[in-house]
Amino acid sequence: MLEEIRQQPAALERTLNFELRRIGRLRSAIEKKRPRLIVLAARGTSDNAALFGRYLLEIATGIPVALSAPSVLTLYGADMELSDALVVALSQSGESTDTNFVLERARELGAMTAGVTNEAKSAMARIAEFPFLVRAGREQSVAATKTYTGQLLTLYLIAYALGAPIDPDDLRRIPEWVDEALKLEPEIGEISGRYRFMDHAVVVGRGLNYSNAFEFALKLMETCYVVAERFSTADFFHGPIAIVERSFPVFVFAPPGVTWESTRSLLERLRTLKAETLVITDCGHREALAAAPRSIAIPAKIRRSRPLELYTPIPYIVPAQLLAAKLAEQKGLDPDHPRTLEKVTKTR
Amino acid sequence: MLEEIRQQPAALERTLNFELRRIGRLRSAIEKKRPRLIVLAARGTSDNAALFGRYLLEIATGIPVALSAPSVLTLYGADMELSDALVVALSQSGESTDTNFVLERARELGAMTAGVTNEAKSAMARIAEFPFLVRAGREQSVAATKTYTGQLLTLYLIAYALGAPIDPDDLRRIPEWVDEALKLEPEIGEISGRYRFMDHAVVVGRGLNYSNAFEFALKLMETCYVVAERFSTADFFHGPIAIVERSFPVFVFAPPGVTWESTRSLLERLRTLKAETLVITDCGHREALAAAPRSIAIPAKIRRSRPLELYTPIPYIVPAQLLAAKLAEQKGLDPDHPRTLEKVTKTR
Repeated sequence: MLEEIRQQPAALERTLNFELRRIGRLRSAIEKKRPRLIVLAARGTSDNAALFGRYLLEIATGIPVALSAPSVLTLYGADMELSDALVVALSQSGESTDTNFVLERARELGAMTAGVTNEAKSAMARIAEFPFLVRAGREQSVAATKTYTGQLLTLYLIAYALGAPIDPDDLRRIPEWVDEALKLEPEIGEISGRYRFMDHAVVVGRGLNYSNAFEFALKLMETCYVVAERFSTADFFHGPIAIVERSFPVFVFAPPGVTWESTRSLLERLRTLKAETLVITDCGHREALAAAPRSIAIPAKIRRSRPLELYTPIPYIVPAQLLAAKLAEQKGLDPDHPRTLEKVTKTR
Repeated sequence: MLEEIRQQPAALERTLNFELRRIGRLRSAIEKKRPRLIVLAARGTSDNAALFGRYLLEIATGIPVALSAPSVLTLYGADMELSDALVVALSQSGESTDTNFVLERARELGAMTAGVTNEAKSAMARIAEFPFLVRAGREQSVAATKTYTGQLLTLYLIAYALGAPIDPDDLRRIPEWVDEALKLEPEIGEISGRYRFMDHAVVVGRGLNYSNAFEFALKLMETCYVVAERFSTADFFHGPIAIVERSFPVFVFAPPGVTWESTRSLLERLRTLKAETLVITDCGHREALAAAPRSIAIPAKIRRSRPLELYTPIPYIVPAQLLAAKLAEQKGLDPDHPRTLEKVTKTR
């Protein structure tokens, strides 16, 4: 897992070099027929990437995005009205049975289909009209890391194909920011010792970083067996915050931008409740660093765009991946072989 | 909370009597212009009801459904393309600021809008083109119960307005099934003692009962301060199940129908892992009762329809509500006044 986390700058660069050239075909198809709806289909870590895609695509293109509930098609057999839709499926292996089923049915129902997978020879790469490859190299660890960031990057490319104001030159800087984030490894190794006996936690994010809260929580569950809840900043305030008591561990993604005001309010509340909060942010966002007792700051100043935090999600997940991997070590667990897990999701 | 749980049969009957008459207007409007997309907007418990609506409406109408991420409009200010959409907002108080903002923006953007609220004089009732009232009577407890089931019932009515094969005569039997479920109160009171020292748990459901997993987990968090994770049966299998160890408490909604096969596989796996599983089902589903060490069975045989479990979600949440309320008592907590919570969600 650690090895694969470290491979991310190279993997992201490779993805960009190859797929930026291939995105033109989708761009042309969309110029001819703009979808009125985007449906994202995925499971597990890929579903967290889809959650990012949902925010990114709605914010940057204005086209409504639905996260597919595969069972609606696979189990309930609904005849979905998808002729105006672009259906994007995500799966590292490209062999996730129900995600592929959604893709096949969507094609039959007249949708434009795209697939995002790490495996060139997978079923998904054949089924999708517009296949994209994450090119992260084989992922050995059951806990996905480099494929998650690769999927996020590919979603930026799909947004670009849909006409979103995304500059490929900005995307080209992402590997460098990830590289900077990786420099935190020794520091995060030390921090992880503190959580040796943590058995539950809450992870919070909002907007473009909401999916990172899901992804960090999933890594904590898969590799450290921590019962980790994930919430949007807004939802957490209204109900679930009741579980927080003195010294309860809360991890908060705290980028600059439009989500900062509500994040700051949450951090203030957590301070009052005497929770033990750690924020993940970048060195350019001093206010966030001052707002919590603990913090991890990525050394790189991440390009401020519109919206301000547009490019934070990929670099911000890196310290979280490192923390999960290091914490697993502290707990004497093998993050590459979590108990009871298999890599490919075959859902009936 | 207990008092309000008990009021549900009467509340549901009242909702049905009044709103079934009012649904005709929406039905006519939809006959004139069928939406190509449904967007559901809500927060907290209402968001769990929306999750039910997403499955129900897609399965029963084939129209794609997206759960709104309010921040896309409220914070990011995206210009969403919603002219073909029906936007349905749900809020008990009708004063949830960001849900109402979504409704207002959607109207400006040309969408057909409906609101589902418990308060006739609320802002939502004024903003929505088609307002519906849950008519549950004032809800005093911060932990919502009767408004959740009222919202579910209203979503059946909206599906009916959209031409779904739902028979109002079947809906009229729901209060009676809830009444039967309420008879379990003494039994659930006894069961709750067992969980006195439970501090974390997992709740699982799928398809039409997926939202019930979220809702039960939320009640456990709000009223019992239990760190309660919620998953779909399918997602839980692939990753998060790693947190399960000997005697780990897992609650599973186990209706008959298309989700049963995957639920049974999960129950088998949980048995191997020696988790302590409790299923919630009805007396007509003997296979489910035999598949777990513990169970709660609603005495009523719930009408089998198409899909088979179409009418299970409302009666199935009732034992879960009772269990949360009784467990709060066992833990010496006041479920009506959870720490740090307020009733109306005002999100910035």
